[in-house]
Amino acid sequence: MRQKMIDMVHRIQDEICESLAAIDQTTCREDVWERDEGGGGRSRVFSGGSVFEKAGVNVSVVYGTLEPEAAQAMGGGQSLEGDDLDFFATGLSLVLHPNNPMAPTVHANYRYFERGTGDRDGSWWFGGGADLTPSYLFEEDARHFHSTLKDACDRHNVADYAHYKEWCDTYFHIPHRAEGRGVGGIFFDDLRANNKQDCFDFVKDCAESFLQSYLPILERRKDMAYDNQQKEWQNLRRGRYVEFNLVYDRGTTFGLKTNGRIESILMSLPLVARWEYCHEIEPGSEEERMQNVLKQPVDWIE
Amino acid sequence: MRQKMIDMVHRIQDEICESLAAIDQTTCREDVWERDEGGGGRSRVFSGGSVFEKAGVNVSVVYGTLEPEAAQAMGGGQSLEGDDLDFFATGLSLVLHPNNPMAPTVHANYRYFERGTGDRDGSWWFGGGADLTPSYLFEEDARHFHSTLKDACDRHNVADYAHYKEWCDTYFHIPHRAEGRGVGGIFFDDLRANNKQDCFDFVKDCAESFLQSYLPILERRKDMAYDNQQKEWQNLRRGRYVEFNLVYDRGTTFGLKTNGRIESILMSLPLVARWEYCHEIEPGSEEERMQNVLKQPVDWIE
Repeated sequence: MRQKMIDMVHRIQDEICESLAAIDQTTCREDVWERDEGGGGRSRVFSGGSVFEKAGVNVSVVYGTLEPEAAQAMGGGQSLEGDDLDFFATGLSLVLHPNNPMAPTVHANYRYFERGTGDRDGSWWFGGGADLTPSYLFEEDARHFHSTLKDACDRHNVADYAHYKEWCDTYFHIPHRAEGRGVGGIFFDDLRANNKQDCFDFVKDCAESFLQSYLPILERRKDMAYDNQQKEWQNLRRGRYVEFNLVYDRGTTFGLKTNGRIESILMSLPLVARWEYCHEIEPGSEEERMQNVLKQPVDWIE
Repeated sequence: MRQKMIDMVHRIQDEICESLAAIDQTTCREDVWERDEGGGGRSRVFSGGSVFEKAGVNVSVVYGTLEPEAAQAMGGGQSLEGDDLDFFATGLSLVLHPNNPMAPTVHANYRYFERGTGDRDGSWWFGGGADLTPSYLFEEDARHFHSTLKDACDRHNVADYAHYKEWCDTYFHIPHRAEGRGVGGIFFDDLRANNKQDCFDFVKDCAESFLQSYLPILERRKDMAYDNQQKEWQNLRRGRYVEFNLVYDRGTTFGLKTNGRIESILMSLPLVARWEYCHEIEPGSEEERMQNVLKQPVDWIE
């Protein structure tokens, strides 16, 4: 399974980056890096192209021995001990921030973990998900994104869209702002179900569905007209994205505390973010429509 | 002491804001707010003026009963119990972000805490400090800032500049970047020494020295010429400021987790911040000179 997952995430990274390069009319920068404690990764970043202000697509394969504290933080449900401090993790992680404020930011992450040799019950699991963060609300975009993810879930017995949708709303929530990060998507963790192959098939299907979930939205929005005030609103929303990632996101905070590759961990941050004191939204505006949805998650699929 | 400290921080807020308004050729916005659980504050913010991109000067007087967990996080040294869960806190807190990249950001905070009735040993303490965060290094600025603070410390037996300087370097450190937030200043906490009056006199002297420590620097730098590339470097440095405040700063993280007034807590964030993937500094440049000092704290006073 380790090799199967490694091959899959590298293949999907290639596919996605090829597709993004064509849209962005540019090539990405690639950094292959090693981790002192074992393993490494391949980071690819777009910036300065025609469509993406900043976009990162990262794969990593890391392994080693966990400190007991880190082991606890890493989770995995069951209480594992002794040689189970050895771990293996591989995954694909991407965050795309387009230039155009009408085009939403998107995030996806699919990962596989093992503790010890990964044979015992509870010693292996999958996690992942994808979520969409628009600055302006286009309901058809949210519906398309969710539909694609629901279709992927529906093709697999191990998956449950309704559950993962709610989990996503709960996870990508900014308590101190009392609002969601975006219009959600799916989120799942500790997925172990009946057997590895079924779980892998689902995760692979999700990863393969990414382009289909996002590209039609990007195509519709990337060349829309916008003004400075709308760009500033996008930057304010990106400030909230920074708040979520630095304060709450488990992957980010875990990475910062465990000597991860900083540039790959913080690749998810936007190029520019903005904080205005007591910013006020005009009643009846498009900005207010967006915020109302962030305050109260919507079921995008009836 | 409660009333003495309350009066002092309000008076200093007035003095500082009057002085900033004159320099900025503008008036500040004032928000007086109340806290559901007890107390409130007075926030004043400058933005859009001629000198400050964003500048906030806040005073607060809050009290109530702590959750045991919050009590622990709040610190105060001694293990206090029972009615000592009642608390009182008042302080002055400011962060000034100038437009001009040659003019440094500055932060200062002076505060007084009580637990219970504040009579027992260890049930009251002062804390505070001030630190300077330039984007470009002017050694004379760092020396002036530190000298003013050292002079304030030297006028009081309860204070120790050398200790507080080192404490500041340790506190305003960004571990995941392996660099300091700026060129430091002083930081102290749990100051209780022999008696309240001596501690208060020191803290008052520090607060009264703020304008003297910062204004001469601001005057020298606020009208210097700069280009876009230097403005971008300032925004990158402000990204690091955001990283420190959201990930490590105790006041900020405590505030976010305890239902503080969000706009006052996050007043410290800059208007704009920037994150470039793998930004590289030109060897021998002014940016490199700045970074070298952040990597290795300097003793500014021989």
